[in-house]
Amino acid sequence: MTARTSPKQVRGERLVEKVFASAAAEIARIGHQHISIEEVAARAGVNKTSIYRRWPTPDRLVLDMFERGADANHDPPDTGTLRGDLVSYVRQYEVIRGDPITMAIVRMHAASGFVGELADLLLKITERDRTDVLRMFERGVARGELPRGASPELGYDLVHGALMELTLTRSGEGPEVRAARKVERLVEVILLGLASVAMHEATGKRRSVTPR
Amino acid sequence: MTARTSPKQVRGERLVEKVFASAAAEIARIGHQHISIEEVAARAGVNKTSIYRRWPTPDRLVLDMFERGADANHDPPDTGTLRGDLVSYVRQYEVIRGDPITMAIVRMHAASGFVGELADLLLKITERDRTDVLRMFERGVARGELPRGASPELGYDLVHGALMELTLTRSGEGPEVRAARKVERLVEVILLGLASVAMHEATGKRRSVTPR
Repeated sequence: MTARTSPKQVRGERLVEKVFASAAAEIARIGHQHISIEEVAARAGVNKTSIYRRWPTPDRLVLDMFERGADANHDPPDTGTLRGDLVSYVRQYEVIRGDPITMAIVRMHAASGFVGELADLLLKITERDRTDVLRMFERGVARGELPRGASPELGYDLVHGALMELTLTRSGEGPEVRAARKVERLVEVILLGLASVAMHEATGKRRSVTPR
Repeated sequence: MTARTSPKQVRGERLVEKVFASAAAEIARIGHQHISIEEVAARAGVNKTSIYRRWPTPDRLVLDMFERGADANHDPPDTGTLRGDLVSYVRQYEVIRGDPITMAIVRMHAASGFVGELADLLLKITERDRTDVLRMFERGVARGELPRGASPELGYDLVHGALMELTLTRSGEGPEVRAARKVERLVEVILLGLASVAMHEATGKRRSVTPR
Protein backbone atom coordinates (compact mmCIF):
# COMPACT_ATOMS: atom_id res chain seq x y z
CA MET A 1 0.00 0.00 0.00
CA THR A 2 1.18 3.52 -0.74
CA ALA A 3 1.23 6.43 1.70
CA ARG A 4 -2.09 8.13 2.54
CA THR A 5 -3.22 10.39 -0.27
CA SER A 6 -3.78 14.05 0.44
CA PRO A 7 -7.30 15.41 -0.23
CA LYS A 8 -6.29 17.04 -3.53
CA GLN A 9 -5.06 13.80 -5.07
CA VAL A 10 -8.42 12.06 -4.96
CA ARG A 11 -9.83 11.87 -8.50
CA GLY A 12 -12.29 10.10 -10.74
CA GLU A 13 -14.23 7.11 -9.44
CA ARG A 14 -12.41 7.17 -6.12
CA LEU A 15 -13.52 10.75 -5.58
CA VAL A 16 -17.10 9.88 -6.50
CA GLU A 17 -17.06 6.92 -4.12
CA LYS A 18 -15.66 8.90 -1.20
CA VAL A 19 -17.99 11.85 -1.76
CA PHE A 20 -21.08 9.63 -2.07
CA ALA A 21 -20.20 7.72 1.10
CA SER A 22 -19.69 10.99 2.94
CA ALA A 23 -22.89 12.49 1.53
CA ALA A 24 -24.83 9.37 2.56
CA ALA A 25 -23.56 9.71 6.12
CA GLU A 26 -24.48 13.39 6.15
CA ILE A 27 -27.94 12.60 4.75
CA ALA A 28 -28.47 10.01 7.47
CA ARG A 29 -27.35 12.55 10.08
CA ILE A 30 -29.24 15.67 9.07
CA GLY A 31 -31.38 14.89 6.00
CA HIS A 32 -30.71 15.42 2.30
CA GLN A 33 -32.16 18.92 2.29
CA HIS A 34 -29.65 20.16 4.88
CA ILE A 35 -26.33 18.79 3.68
CA SER A 36 -23.58 21.21 2.69
CA ILE A 37 -20.71 20.72 0.24
CA GLU A 38 -18.28 21.94 2.90
CA GLU A 39 -19.29 19.28 5.42
CA VAL A 40 -19.40 16.54 2.80
CA ALA A 41 -15.87 17.53 1.70
CA ALA A 42 -14.56 17.63 5.26
CA ARG A 43 -16.00 14.21 6.11
CA ALA A 44 -14.72 12.70 2.83
CA GLY A 45 -11.29 14.23 3.34
CA VAL A 46 -11.36 15.78 -0.14
CA ASN A 47 -10.96 19.32 -1.33
CA LYS A 48 -14.31 21.09 -1.56
CA THR A 49 -13.42 22.60 -4.94
CA SER A 50 -13.13 19.04 -6.31
CA ILE A 51 -16.75 18.58 -5.29
CA TYR A 52 -17.96 21.95 -6.61
CA ARG A 53 -16.37 21.22 -9.99
CA ARG A 54 -18.61 18.16 -10.48
CA TRP A 55 -21.63 19.11 -8.41
CA PRO A 56 -22.23 22.86 -8.18
CA THR A 57 -24.97 22.47 -5.53
CA PRO A 58 -25.86 19.92 -2.82
CA ASP A 59 -29.04 19.19 -4.77
CA ARG A 60 -27.07 18.19 -7.88
CA LEU A 61 -24.89 15.96 -5.72
CA VAL A 62 -27.85 14.21 -4.10
CA LEU A 63 -29.64 13.81 -7.43
CA ASP A 64 -26.57 12.37 -9.14
CA MET A 65 -25.97 10.02 -6.22
CA PHE A 66 -29.54 8.70 -6.23
CA GLU A 67 -29.57 8.40 -10.02
CA ARG A 68 -26.34 6.39 -10.16
CA GLY A 69 -27.45 4.28 -7.21
CA ALA A 70 -30.73 3.48 -8.92
CA ASP A 71 -29.08 2.60 -12.22
CA ALA A 72 -26.38 0.50 -10.56
CA ASN A 73 -29.02 -1.41 -8.62
CA HIS A 74 -31.38 -1.84 -11.55
CA ASP A 75 -31.00 -5.50 -12.32
CA PRO A 76 -34.45 -7.07 -12.22
CA PRO A 77 -34.27 -10.84 -11.62
CA ASP A 78 -34.99 -13.17 -14.53
CA THR A 79 -34.34 -16.60 -13.06
CA GLY A 80 -36.50 -18.59 -15.44
CA THR A 81 -39.34 -19.10 -12.98
CA LEU A 82 -41.82 -16.66 -11.51
CA ARG A 83 -41.25 -18.12 -8.05
CA GLY A 84 -37.50 -17.56 -8.41
CA ASP A 85 -37.96 -14.01 -9.69
CA LEU A 86 -40.28 -13.03 -6.85
CA VAL A 87 -38.17 -14.65 -4.13
CA SER A 88 -35.16 -12.80 -5.46
CA TYR A 89 -37.16 -9.55 -5.68
CA VAL A 90 -38.51 -9.70 -2.11
CA ARG A 91 -35.13 -10.80 -0.82
CA GLN A 92 -33.77 -7.42 -1.91
CA TYR A 93 -34.73 -6.23 1.55
CA GLU A 94 -31.52 -7.80 2.81
CA VAL A 95 -29.41 -5.72 0.44
CA ILE A 96 -31.43 -2.57 1.11
CA ARG A 97 -31.20 -2.96 4.88
CA GLY A 98 -27.49 -3.63 4.61
CA ASP A 99 -26.77 -0.51 2.57
CA PRO A 100 -27.07 2.80 4.43
CA ILE A 101 -27.41 4.90 1.26
CA THR A 102 -30.25 2.84 -0.19
CA MET A 103 -31.89 2.56 3.22
CA ALA A 104 -31.75 6.34 3.62
CA ILE A 105 -33.37 6.77 0.20
CA VAL A 106 -36.11 4.25 0.94
CA ARG A 107 -36.88 5.82 4.31
CA MET A 108 -37.01 9.32 2.89
CA HIS A 109 -39.15 8.07 0.03
CA ALA A 110 -41.59 6.53 2.51
CA ALA A 111 -41.54 9.79 4.44
CA SER A 112 -42.37 11.71 1.26
CA GLY A 113 -39.28 13.76 1.93
CA PHE A 114 -38.59 14.64 -1.69
CA VAL A 115 -39.58 17.59 -3.85
CA GLY A 116 -38.79 18.83 -7.34
CA GLU A 117 -36.35 16.88 -9.49
CA LEU A 118 -35.65 14.38 -6.73
CA ALA A 119 -39.34 13.56 -6.37
CA ASP A 120 -39.58 13.12 -10.15
CA LEU A 121 -36.58 10.81 -10.15
CA LEU A 122 -37.98 8.71 -7.32
CA LEU A 123 -41.33 8.49 -9.08
CA LYS A 124 -39.55 7.30 -12.22
CA ILE A 125 -37.65 4.67 -10.23
CA THR A 126 -40.87 3.49 -8.55
CA GLU A 127 -42.61 3.18 -11.90
CA ARG A 128 -39.68 1.27 -13.39
CA ASP A 129 -39.73 -1.09 -10.42
CA ARG A 130 -43.46 -1.62 -10.82
CA THR A 131 -43.04 -2.37 -14.53
CA ASP A 132 -40.25 -4.87 -13.71
CA VAL A 133 -42.52 -6.78 -11.35
CA LEU A 134 -45.51 -6.69 -13.71
CA ARG A 135 -43.25 -8.19 -16.40
CA MET A 136 -42.19 -11.01 -14.06
CA PHE A 137 -45.86 -11.89 -13.59
CA GLU A 138 -46.58 -11.62 -17.31
CA ARG A 139 -43.68 -13.95 -18.10
CA GLY A 140 -45.01 -16.32 -15.42
CA VAL A 141 -48.48 -16.34 -16.97
CA ALA A 142 -46.97 -16.88 -20.43
CA ARG A 143 -45.00 -19.87 -19.09
CA GLY A 144 -48.15 -21.29 -17.54
CA GLU A 145 -46.98 -20.84 -13.95
CA LEU A 146 -50.13 -18.85 -13.20
CA PRO A 147 -53.56 -19.11 -14.85
CA ARG A 148 -54.31 -16.51 -17.53
CA GLY A 149 -56.77 -14.60 -15.33
CA ALA A 150 -54.26 -13.97 -12.52
CA SER A 151 -53.80 -10.28 -11.83
CA PRO A 152 -50.24 -8.92 -12.08
CA GLU A 153 -51.44 -5.69 -10.41
CA LEU A 154 -52.65 -7.50 -7.27
CA GLY A 155 -49.42 -9.46 -7.38
CA TYR A 156 -47.37 -6.27 -7.49
CA ASP A 157 -49.19 -4.74 -4.52
CA LEU A 158 -48.58 -7.84 -2.40
CA VAL A 159 -45.00 -8.40 -3.48
CA HIS A 160 -44.02 -4.76 -3.09
CA GLY A 161 -45.95 -4.56 0.18
CA ALA A 162 -44.03 -7.60 1.47
CA LEU A 163 -40.76 -5.97 0.41
CA MET A 164 -41.67 -2.77 2.29
CA GLU A 165 -42.78 -4.77 5.31
CA LEU A 166 -39.46 -6.62 5.48
CA THR A 167 -37.45 -3.48 4.74
CA LEU A 168 -39.12 -0.97 7.02
CA THR A 169 -40.26 -3.08 9.95
CA ARG A 170 -38.39 -5.45 12.22
CA SER A 171 -40.24 -8.57 11.12
CA GLY A 172 -37.65 -9.51 8.52
CA GLU A 173 -35.03 -10.04 11.16
CA GLY A 174 -33.91 -13.24 12.74
CA PRO A 175 -31.48 -15.95 11.73
CA GLU A 176 -30.64 -15.75 8.05
CA VAL A 177 -31.99 -19.17 7.10
CA ARG A 178 -35.31 -18.55 8.80
CA ALA A 179 -35.65 -15.18 7.06
CA ALA A 180 -34.89 -16.73 3.65
CA ARG A 181 -37.49 -19.44 4.26
CA LYS A 182 -39.98 -16.74 5.24
CA VAL A 183 -39.57 -14.96 1.91
CA GLU A 184 -40.17 -18.25 0.09
CA ARG A 185 -43.33 -18.85 2.06
CA LEU A 186 -44.60 -15.29 1.52
CA VAL A 187 -44.09 -15.69 -2.24
CA GLU A 188 -45.82 -19.09 -2.12
CA VAL A 189 -48.87 -17.59 -0.41
CA ILE A 190 -49.04 -14.83 -3.03
CA LEU A 191 -48.68 -17.24 -5.98
CA LEU A 192 -51.19 -19.80 -4.74
CA GLY A 193 -53.55 -17.00 -3.71
CA LEU A 194 -53.41 -15.33 -7.11
CA ALA A 195 -53.98 -18.66 -8.85
CA SER A 196 -56.95 -19.54 -6.61
CA VAL A 197 -58.58 -16.14 -6.98
CA ALA A 198 -58.16 -16.28 -10.77
CA MET A 199 -59.78 -19.71 -10.85
CA HIS A 200 -62.60 -18.70 -8.49
CA GLU A 201 -63.28 -15.57 -10.51
CA ALA A 202 -63.33 -17.52 -13.76
CA THR A 203 -65.78 -20.05 -12.29
CA GLY A 204 -67.81 -17.36 -10.52
CA LYS A 205 -68.40 -15.50 -13.75
CA ARG A 206 -69.96 -18.55 -15.33
CA ARG A 207 -71.80 -19.76 -12.26
CA SER A 208 -73.22 -16.95 -10.19
CA VAL A 209 -72.83 -13.41 -9.01
CA THR A 210 -73.23 -14.10 -5.30
CA PRO A 211 -70.97 -11.67 -3.42
CA ARG A 212 -68.21 -13.57 -1.69
CA MET B 1 -72.74 31.37 16.44
CA THR B 2 -71.10 33.64 18.98
CA ALA B 3 -68.40 36.21 18.30
CA ARG B 4 -64.85 34.92 17.65
CA THR B 5 -63.21 33.88 20.88
CA SER B 6 -59.95 35.54 21.88
CA PRO B 7 -56.93 33.23 22.30
CA LYS B 8 -57.20 33.27 26.11
CA GLN B 9 -60.75 31.94 26.17
CA VAL B 10 -59.90 28.63 24.53
CA ARG B 11 -60.05 25.85 27.13
CA GLY B 12 -60.37 22.12 27.70
CA GLU B 13 -61.06 19.85 24.75
CA ARG B 14 -61.32 22.74 22.34
CA LEU B 15 -57.84 23.87 23.33
CA VAL B 16 -56.49 20.35 22.90
CA GLU B 17 -58.12 20.06 19.49
CA LYS B 18 -56.82 23.39 18.23
CA VAL B 19 -53.32 22.78 19.57
CA PHE B 20 -53.10 19.27 18.10
CA ALA B 21 -54.31 20.48 14.69
CA SER B 22 -51.76 23.28 14.76
CA ALA B 23 -48.97 20.95 15.96
CA ALA B 24 -49.83 18.49 13.17
CA ALA B 25 -49.52 21.23 10.58
CA GLU B 26 -46.19 22.33 12.07
CA ILE B 27 -44.96 18.72 12.13
CA ALA B 28 -45.89 18.33 8.47
CA ARG B 29 -44.08 21.60 7.68
CA ILE B 30 -40.81 21.22 9.57
CA GLY B 31 -40.80 17.84 11.35
CA HIS B 32 -41.72 16.89 14.92
CA GLN B 33 -38.21 17.48 16.25
CA HIS B 34 -38.25 21.13 15.18
CA ILE B 35 -41.64 22.41 16.30
CA SER B 36 -41.80 25.16 18.90
CA ILE B 37 -44.56 25.94 21.39
CA GLU B 38 -44.53 29.58 20.24
CA GLU B 39 -45.26 28.71 16.62
CA VAL B 40 -47.85 26.10 17.54
CA ALA B 41 -49.60 28.69 19.73
CA ALA B 42 -49.48 31.36 17.03
CA ARG B 43 -50.91 29.03 14.38
CA ALA B 44 -53.61 27.76 16.76
CA GLY B 45 -54.52 31.29 17.80
CA VAL B 46 -54.16 30.38 21.49
CA ASN B 47 -52.08 31.85 24.27
CA LYS B 48 -48.73 30.08 24.54
CA THR B 49 -49.00 29.92 28.33
CA SER B 50 -52.14 27.80 27.89
CA ILE B 51 -49.96 25.33 26.02
CA TYR B 52 -47.03 25.45 28.44
CA ARG B 53 -49.39 24.74 31.34
CA ARG B 54 -50.37 21.36 29.83
CA TRP B 55 -47.28 20.52 27.83
CA PRO B 56 -44.05 21.97 29.27
CA THR B 57 -41.98 20.93 26.20
CA PRO B 58 -42.66 20.30 22.51
CA ASP B 59 -41.69 16.66 23.10
CA ARG B 60 -44.42 16.23 25.72
CA LEU B 61 -46.92 17.79 23.33
CA VAL B 62 -45.96 15.48 20.46
CA LEU B 63 -45.95 12.43 22.73
CA ASP B 64 -49.37 13.23 24.21
CA MET B 65 -50.77 13.90 20.75
CA PHE B 66 -49.53 10.60 19.34
CA GLU B 67 -50.65 8.69 22.43
CA ARG B 68 -54.18 10.06 22.32
CA GLY B 69 -54.34 9.60 18.57
CA ALA B 70 -53.30 5.96 18.92
CA ASP B 71 -55.79 5.27 21.71
CA ALA B 72 -58.64 7.04 19.94
CA ASN B 73 -57.95 5.05 16.77
CA HIS B 74 -57.49 1.72 18.52
CA ASP B 75 -60.61 -0.11 17.54
CA PRO B 76 -59.60 -3.38 15.90
CA PRO B 77 -62.36 -4.76 13.67
CA ASP B 78 -64.35 -7.78 14.88
CA THR B 79 -66.94 -8.23 12.16
CA GLY B 80 -67.64 -11.91 12.75
CA THR B 81 -65.64 -13.11 9.74
CA LEU B 82 -61.92 -13.09 9.05
CA ARG B 83 -62.55 -11.73 5.56
CA GLY B 84 -64.58 -8.85 7.00
CA ASP B 85 -61.94 -8.11 9.66
CA LEU B 86 -59.10 -8.04 7.15
CA VAL B 87 -60.96 -5.95 4.58
CA SER B 88 -61.80 -3.46 7.29
CA TYR B 89 -58.18 -3.52 8.54
CA VAL B 90 -56.60 -2.92 5.11
CA ARG B 91 -59.23 -0.31 4.28
CA GLN B 92 -57.83 1.79 7.14
CA TYR B 93 -55.52 3.28 4.54
CA GLU B 94 -58.42 5.51 3.47
CA VAL B 95 -58.75 6.95 6.98
CA ILE B 96 -54.97 7.26 7.41
CA ARG B 97 -54.52 9.02 4.07
CA GLY B 98 -57.41 11.33 4.87
CA ASP B 99 -56.02 12.39 8.25
CA PRO B 100 -52.91 14.61 8.14
CA ILE B 101 -51.90 13.86 11.75
CA THR B 102 -51.99 10.09 11.33
CA MET B 103 -50.39 10.34 7.91
CA ALA B 104 -47.55 12.44 9.37
CA ILE B 105 -47.02 9.83 12.10
CA VAL B 106 -47.01 6.94 9.63
CA ARG B 107 -44.57 8.71 7.33
CA MET B 108 -42.21 9.60 10.16
CA HIS B 109 -42.49 6.07 11.49
CA ALA B 110 -41.50 4.70 8.07
CA ALA B 111 -38.66 7.21 8.00
CA SER B 112 -37.46 6.02 11.41
CA GLY B 113 -37.74 9.60 12.53
CA PHE B 114 -38.37 8.80 16.18
CA VAL B 115 -36.07 8.46 19.16
CA GLY B 116 -36.46 8.00 22.91
CA GLU B 117 -39.96 7.93 24.40
CA LEU B 118 -41.58 8.52 21.03
CA ALA B 119 -39.79 5.55 19.49
CA ASP B 120 -40.89 3.39 22.44
CA LEU B 121 -44.47 4.54 22.05
CA LEU B 122 -44.48 3.81 18.32
CA LEU B 123 -42.96 0.38 18.95
CA LYS B 124 -45.71 -0.33 21.48
CA ILE B 125 -48.38 0.76 18.99
CA THR B 126 -46.85 -1.40 16.25
CA GLU B 127 -46.79 -4.42 18.55
CA ARG B 128 -50.40 -3.84 19.60
CA ASP B 129 -51.41 -3.61 15.95
CA ARG B 130 -49.56 -6.84 15.17
CA THR B 131 -51.28 -8.61 18.06
CA ASP B 132 -54.68 -7.35 16.85
CA VAL B 133 -54.11 -8.84 13.40
CA LEU B 134 -52.74 -12.13 14.74
CA ARG B 135 -55.91 -12.42 16.85
CA MET B 136 -58.10 -11.88 13.79
CA PHE B 137 -56.35 -14.80 12.12
CA GLU B 138 -56.59 -16.97 15.23
CA ARG B 139 -60.33 -16.30 15.49
CA GLY B 140 -60.61 -17.15 11.77
CA VAL B 141 -58.82 -20.47 12.27
CA ALA B 142 -61.00 -21.23 15.31
CA ARG B 143 -64.14 -20.55 13.23
CA GLY B 144 -62.87 -22.85 10.48
CA GLU B 145 -62.39 -20.07 7.94
CA LEU B 146 -58.77 -21.11 7.49
CA PRO B 147 -57.20 -24.56 7.97
CA ARG B 148 -55.46 -25.14 11.27
CA GLY B 149 -51.97 -25.03 9.74
CA ALA B 150 -52.40 -21.54 8.23
CA SER B 151 -49.77 -19.12 9.49
CA PRO B 152 -51.05 -15.95 11.18
CA GLU B 153 -47.51 -14.52 11.00
CA LEU B 154 -47.33 -14.80 7.21
CA GLY B 155 -50.84 -13.38 7.13
CA TYR B 156 -49.78 -10.40 9.22
CA ASP B 157 -46.79 -9.62 6.98
CA LEU B 158 -48.96 -9.65 3.86
CA VAL B 159 -51.88 -7.76 5.36
CA HIS B 160 -49.70 -5.11 6.99
CA GLY B 161 -47.56 -4.92 3.83
CA ALA B 162 -50.72 -4.32 1.76
CA LEU B 163 -51.82 -1.62 4.20
CA MET B 164 -48.43 0.11 3.91
CA GLU B 165 -48.50 -0.23 0.13
CA LEU B 166 -51.91 1.43 -0.12
CA THR B 167 -51.02 4.05 2.47
CA LEU B 168 -47.56 5.08 1.33
CA THR B 169 -47.75 4.64 -2.43
CA ARG B 170 -50.16 5.95 -5.01
CA SER B 171 -51.52 2.57 -6.01
CA GLY B 172 -54.48 2.79 -3.66
CA GLU B 173 -55.91 5.72 -5.52
CA GLY B 174 -58.61 5.79 -8.11
CA PRO B 175 -62.39 5.82 -7.95
CA GLU B 176 -63.66 4.81 -4.53
CA VAL B 177 -65.56 1.73 -5.65
CA ARG B 178 -62.61 0.37 -7.58
CA ALA B 179 -60.31 0.92 -4.61
CA ALA B 180 -62.75 -0.84 -2.25
CA ARG B 181 -62.98 -3.80 -4.64
CA LYS B 182 -59.18 -3.89 -4.80
CA VAL B 183 -58.89 -4.29 -1.03
CA GLU B 184 -61.39 -7.16 -1.16
CA ARG B 185 -59.38 -8.88 -3.88
CA LEU B 186 -56.08 -8.38 -2.03
CA VAL B 187 -57.59 -9.96 1.08
CA GLU B 188 -59.01 -12.80 -1.01
CA VAL B 189 -55.56 -13.56 -2.48
CA ILE B 190 -54.04 -13.60 1.00
CA LEU B 191 -56.75 -15.86 2.46
CA LEU B 192 -56.79 -18.36 -0.40
CA GLY B 193 -52.99 -18.31 -0.52
CA LEU B 194 -52.65 -19.01 3.20
CA ALA B 195 -55.17 -21.84 2.97
CA SER B 196 -53.45 -23.40 -0.06
CA VAL B 197 -49.98 -23.17 1.48
CA ALA B 198 -51.26 -24.71 4.72
CA MET B 199 -52.82 -27.59 2.80
CA HIS B 200 -49.76 -28.09 0.59
CA GLU B 201 -47.48 -28.05 3.62
CA ALA B 202 -49.67 -30.59 5.42
CA THR B 203 -49.73 -32.89 2.40
CA GLY B 204 -46.05 -32.28 1.60
CA LYS B 205 -45.02 -33.39 5.07
CA ARG B 206 -46.70 -36.71 4.57
CA ARG B 207 -45.76 -37.17 0.95
CA SER B 208 -42.30 -35.94 0.15
CA VAL B 209 -39.61 -33.45 0.94
CA THR B 210 -39.00 -32.26 -2.64
CA PRO B 211 -38.13 -28.57 -2.47
CA ARG B 212 -40.82 -26.52 -4.19
